[in-house]
Amino acid sequence: MPTIRGERLLADLRRLAQFGRYETGVHRPTYSPDDMAARRWVTERMREAGLEPTIDGIGTVLGTSRARGRTLLMGSHLETQPYSGWLDGAMGVIYGLEVARAFAEDPRTADLGIDVGAWADEEGHYGALLGSRSFCGEIGEDMIDAAHGRIGDKRLREALAEAGLAGRPRLTLDPRRYVGYLEAHVEQGDTLDSGGLRLGIVTGIVGIHLYRIVFHGQQNHAGTTRMPVRRDAGVALVRLAAEIDRRFPSVAGPRSVWTTGKITLDPGAPSIIPGKAEMLFQFRDVDPERLLLLERTLEEIVRESNERGPCRAVLEPVSRVTPSAMDAKFQDALEWAAERQAPKLHLRMPSAAGHDAQIFARHLRAGMLFVPSIGGVSHHFSEDTKEDDIVLGCQVFTAAAERILREAA
Amino acid sequence: MPTIRGERLLADLRRLAQFGRYETGVHRPTYSPDDMAARRWVTERMREAGLEPTIDGIGTVLGTSRARGRTLLMGSHLETQPYSGWLDGAMGVIYGLEVARAFAEDPRTADLGIDVGAWADEEGHYGALLGSRSFCGEIGEDMIDAAHGRIGDKRLREALAEAGLAGRPRLTLDPRRYVGYLEAHVEQGDTLDSGGLRLGIVTGIVGIHLYRIVFHGQQNHAGTTRMPVRRDAGVALVRLAAEIDRRFPSVAGPRSVWTTGKITLDPGAPSIIPGKAEMLFQFRDVDPERLLLLERTLEEIVRESNERGPCRAVLEPVSRVTPSAMDAKFQDALEWAAERQAPKLHLRMPSAAGHDAQIFARHLRAGMLFVPSIGGVSHHFSEDTKEDDIVLGCQVFTAAAERILREAA
Repeated sequence: MPTIRGERLLADLRRLAQFGRYETGVHRPTYSPDDMAARRWVTERMREAGLEPTIDGIGTVLGTSRARGRTLLMGSHLETQPYSGWLDGAMGVIYGLEVARAFAEDPRTADLGIDVGAWADEEGHYGALLGSRSFCGEIGEDMIDAAHGRIGDKRLREALAEAGLAGRPRLTLDPRRYVGYLEAHVEQGDTLDSGGLRLGIVTGIVGIHLYRIVFHGQQNHAGTTRMPVRRDAGVALVRLAAEIDRRFPSVAGPRSVWTTGKITLDPGAPSIIPGKAEMLFQFRDVDPERLLLLERTLEEIVRESNERGPCRAVLEPVSRVTPSAMDAKFQDALEWAAERQAPKLHLRMPSAAGHDAQIFARHLRAGMLFVPSIGGVSHHFSEDTKEDDIVLGCQVFTAAAERILREAA
Repeated sequence: MPTIRGERLLADLRRLAQFGRYETGVHRPTYSPDDMAARRWVTERMREAGLEPTIDGIGTVLGTSRARGRTLLMGSHLETQPYSGWLDGAMGVIYGLEVARAFAEDPRTADLGIDVGAWADEEGHYGALLGSRSFCGEIGEDMIDAAHGRIGDKRLREALAEAGLAGRPRLTLDPRRYVGYLEAHVEQGDTLDSGGLRLGIVTGIVGIHLYRIVFHGQQNHAGTTRMPVRRDAGVALVRLAAEIDRRFPSVAGPRSVWTTGKITLDPGAPSIIPGKAEMLFQFRDVDPERLLLLERTLEEIVRESNERGPCRAVLEPVSRVTPSAMDAKFQDALEWAAERQAPKLHLRMPSAAGHDAQIFARHLRAGMLFVPSIGGVSHHFSEDTKEDDIVLGCQVFTAAAERILREAA
């Protein structure tokens, strides 16, 4: 079994975290100067590791192996959520790099191919899972033309041009080249950490439904408009959100989650009754039946709100991502490697976060490995993982990769 | 009794509404180019009416009478709420102008003094009731130094300099000059309109308590953080807002009103659990005891929210405006004039909106007259009043003004 070098892995992660450093975390939005500098730095590390690196027209960095035979694709993403953690995405990319180096340094595995990808904009500053969807042929030029930034409304085309990517070709997956896709990631939840476990073998990735709920009332003066004649869109929103809070627990599964991430009252002044209000509401589950039940419940709550009046609520689905199952054999290989190096300290579990692996799972066999997040904290600059867990995870990842490649040979 | 000219009054109101016209209403924020142009235009109309106009260092326009003896001060404000109505404020200023003209044109009243004020920034783009408070000596230079815009955060000093007002002296009230202060305004509620009434004699102006409620939770990933371990500041806000909605009706008086005008979830992204949330909450009543009871109830709801956890809610009072009583003799004069010209079509009523008259009521005898708002709509560009009601209101206002000045002589 090839052996990774833990200090080299950690040093690369620490160096990468300097690009866009913020407090103890990182602020590295997709296509920002810090993000592009990180991409170029990773390109150099790939070249040193013997891979042939390319940055393509959507910003994805792909390092391809010169080995003959089918290769194993691994990777994750480099950009971060705003003011977020240093490991989310970055760790999976550097794991791929370290596996490639460890394979190359061990004569018994030097002929096995590892390709490493850093998929642009998994975090969706311009479009969720943009790089992996582009690589898998799921994004047309018209979609790139139409895309705008989530913050600030910059056009994707403009962002790509500013990042020096305009006119570059986009890379596309050749499924015949690959045995499959493997991704490592921090758990971002507290299941492993609170259970004293060190490794998670991902069984599947949750589906996500996102809705915009818009409330139409009557803007008016907050002093002179008597309570009985008001049509306060903000009050309608609060009542509906409180009803979700009250009823969702009874229809949710054991691992369902639901979140109101944004609320806007319009015009948003202290002395004006909101004439319009809006909320972004999301729920996730790995079970498609459960997602359907949650959607039916939400539709029912909105219908009841409209029956009650006096404001009109409109439910607009923004996106529906279906759950993705991970490959059973890949799960077995990851579990075998985990059990060898951390007996009984691993768990099969669903991923409650979206990952590039869910895109690859539509085109290749795919698997994912989790390492613990301290306190379950993620999407915050204090996100962290114990160094020992980072190193152990990479060694387990390496062993599983070798097993998968040998079984496919 | 002096007679106003209705067509002249309406023409001036229509001309004034051209400054910052928006749909059928007006967008004229304090110190904007449109607002300053409106102030200069009013200055010219005052001069034509025989008044001596000044624009002072806070933007207030005051037209003073050359008559001997004590004068009656009347006025309102020129700036508007964002994208708001054409009569809110503007009508009270043009009423003052028309009363001054009618008095001057009638030999029997030509020697009676009417001063007309257009008090800057009643609407609080930089500070509620700024001009009337400045005129009444309630604003120090340090407060002007410290003030920022409510939208965009521009410093008041900067806005004044851009408007060409830097260095101008601020006018100050001489209480010995005045018999009192009279203000006319659209009702902004539906009490007169829905009751088929044409005039409201204001008994007092409501007190307003405004609070910021801030919720401290833990920002985290909206997929991976299981429901039982979340500290979602947005959920805490929704629960507290729903509790206000549930409990306030049972402690409110017949004319109490309460409004959540703004809600912010931080960071406000669909896949991030809000770590912080904030709401602006306001209530109003004319009865100081009732205001106290509402405040106690709000404090209790916040305390219970903190006992429940898991997020911490902090209640920050932003401002407390105490209720103001209108002068009894002024009410009598307005009612006498109303009964003569519109028998039985008038009502004594509190004002649920704040007005410059509440500042003057601390320093002079003060009174207010309301005309109906169609459908009770206000703080919206569709705000309107029937032309007949605008004209009738001004004639009643004129008659009351003469009576007040004669009684004081």
